[in-house]
Amino acid sequence: MVNHSSGADEVTPDLGEGTITAAVVESFAGAKDERLAHCIAVLVRHLHAAVRELEPTSAEWLAVVEFLTATGHKSDDTRQEFVLLSDVLGVSALVENINHRKAGGATEATVLGPFHMTQSPPRELGDSLDEVGHDEVCLVTGQVRSVDGTPLAGASVDVWQADDAGFYDVQQPDIQPAGNGRGLFTTDAQGRFHFRTVVPVHYPIPTDGPVGALLLDTGRHPYRPAHIHFLVEADGHRPVTTHIFVSGDPYLGSDAVFSVKRSLVREVRLVEDPRGAEYGLTPPYRHAHIELVLEPA
Amino acid sequence: MVNHSSGADEVTPDLGEGTITAAVVESFAGAKDERLAHCIAVLVRHLHAAVRELEPTSAEWLAVVEFLTATGHKSDDTRQEFVLLSDVLGVSALVENINHRKAGGATEATVLGPFHMTQSPPRELGDSLDEVGHDEVCLVTGQVRSVDGTPLAGASVDVWQADDAGFYDVQQPDIQPAGNGRGLFTTDAQGRFHFRTVVPVHYPIPTDGPVGALLLDTGRHPYRPAHIHFLVEADGHRPVTTHIFVSGDPYLGSDAVFSVKRSLVREVRLVEDPRGAEYGLTPPYRHAHIELVLEPA
Repeated sequence: MVNHSSGADEVTPDLGEGTITAAVVESFAGAKDERLAHCIAVLVRHLHAAVRELEPTSAEWLAVVEFLTATGHKSDDTRQEFVLLSDVLGVSALVENINHRKAGGATEATVLGPFHMTQSPPRELGDSLDEVGHDEVCLVTGQVRSVDGTPLAGASVDVWQADDAGFYDVQQPDIQPAGNGRGLFTTDAQGRFHFRTVVPVHYPIPTDGPVGALLLDTGRHPYRPAHIHFLVEADGHRPVTTHIFVSGDPYLGSDAVFSVKRSLVREVRLVEDPRGAEYGLTPPYRHAHIELVLEPA
Repeated sequence: MVNHSSGADEVTPDLGEGTITAAVVESFAGAKDERLAHCIAVLVRHLHAAVRELEPTSAEWLAVVEFLTATGHKSDDTRQEFVLLSDVLGVSALVENINHRKAGGATEATVLGPFHMTQSPPRELGDSLDEVGHDEVCLVTGQVRSVDGTPLAGASVDVWQADDAGFYDVQQPDIQPAGNGRGLFTTDAQGRFHFRTVVPVHYPIPTDGPVGALLLDTGRHPYRPAHIHFLVEADGHRPVTTHIFVSGDPYLGSDAVFSVKRSLVREVRLVEDPRGAEYGLTPPYRHAHIELVLEPA
């Protein structure tokens, strides 16, 4: 009778639930980049722990794989669905929180979001972000300072926001001119900047992809409270990525991407009295102001 | 002086490191599908725990996002890079281990792998998987049984493997006929099956995508020991997804996808004596045998 018994030798492992995680971690131990090896080891341990806790069926795990694949397929040069996924799972906000925990006195950071994907057009102080020409004007004024109060002249203030219907230029390439709602400003000798724009409104994050389907399936709304994005850089200082949020917005308490900080909520007040008008603007117009405080690098 | 102070009301949260994870989990609590809500909660907790442990910079987290995006972009109808990622991180094998831990006496399961993506062509017992016409023949014989020893007639035995150069048909659509290396067989009245094929060889998992780059960056080899895939189904029994591995293969101890089980290693012996030949085959040829034991559903 022919012997069909196993031909396994002693070096053949027999990886089961009890041994596989250590084997996977060990397999990455030879990486020359120690940080990379450490990151993979930690991610593998936590991912395996989640799988052990959930005990997914093969069909459930396949559903996860298919969700991630669809998320990749939805991403292109003007859409980053994985950033969106990271945002709605609170990971983007957590990473920002961790990286800015020591910034005592500085402006709080919040998420970059998925729409900082094109270069903002350089603009002069006082210019408008609005290339469509809406009637209602919102003046935004601000000053960039160091934590000790020193105004930071020549700082770069990159601004981007959705229009008054809740869409960014890159979402509506056939409707909005490229660069609408965006501007790259440089602060004056007193660290100040000002520009005109439209009052932002709350808007849904894009819901036509896997992340939108996830929110729908789990009963979550997709709204972000109205906000304007800022990315501020100045010589000798740590850059800050932040927003200002419009006070009174109904979604301040349930931002779909978990990014609201009380310190970043600002009133967008109505200026009606011509005696209070600034920069030659004719009331009525809206006005919001923010101090952007950077810590030394 | 204009009051530019915060307009945040009492319901505005202030999500920091200490509170954000609970807020994210809570946001999914309204899901009608309780299993889905539970799965997301567990994945979020472990993902946040990994982020807290690693404290990634924003650039590092962006690198993760970009890696996942590239993994999605590499996936299409004939390539599943996320399955490959799940495989090289040992998650696919862990899921299989978890789902088959109670199959006492049954054939051990192992990963499906990324190449079971096309329908195997139905073939008659004794047919060859090899549509190219190699000289060296490998006979594979087997029997499908229930754990109590009862032969399972009419069982479906889906088989797929790489060719003798280590490539699956779907990887070489211009070289291999579709269905080469694949076959769907039905067991006879004694639960037996047999077919001819080429002796499989160890081969690298696809390395031209992000997962291959990850292995290269971390000093891991991409090889899988030589194997033949089986997916066996029989009425009244739990299906089993498994492999047979070729004994003596140099990669049995370091399978890139952590799927080797000692119980699945088989000798592929050389038959030289005509008196020992079966099924009318003319020696010399190779021969491997496997008993596939299913547990009742």
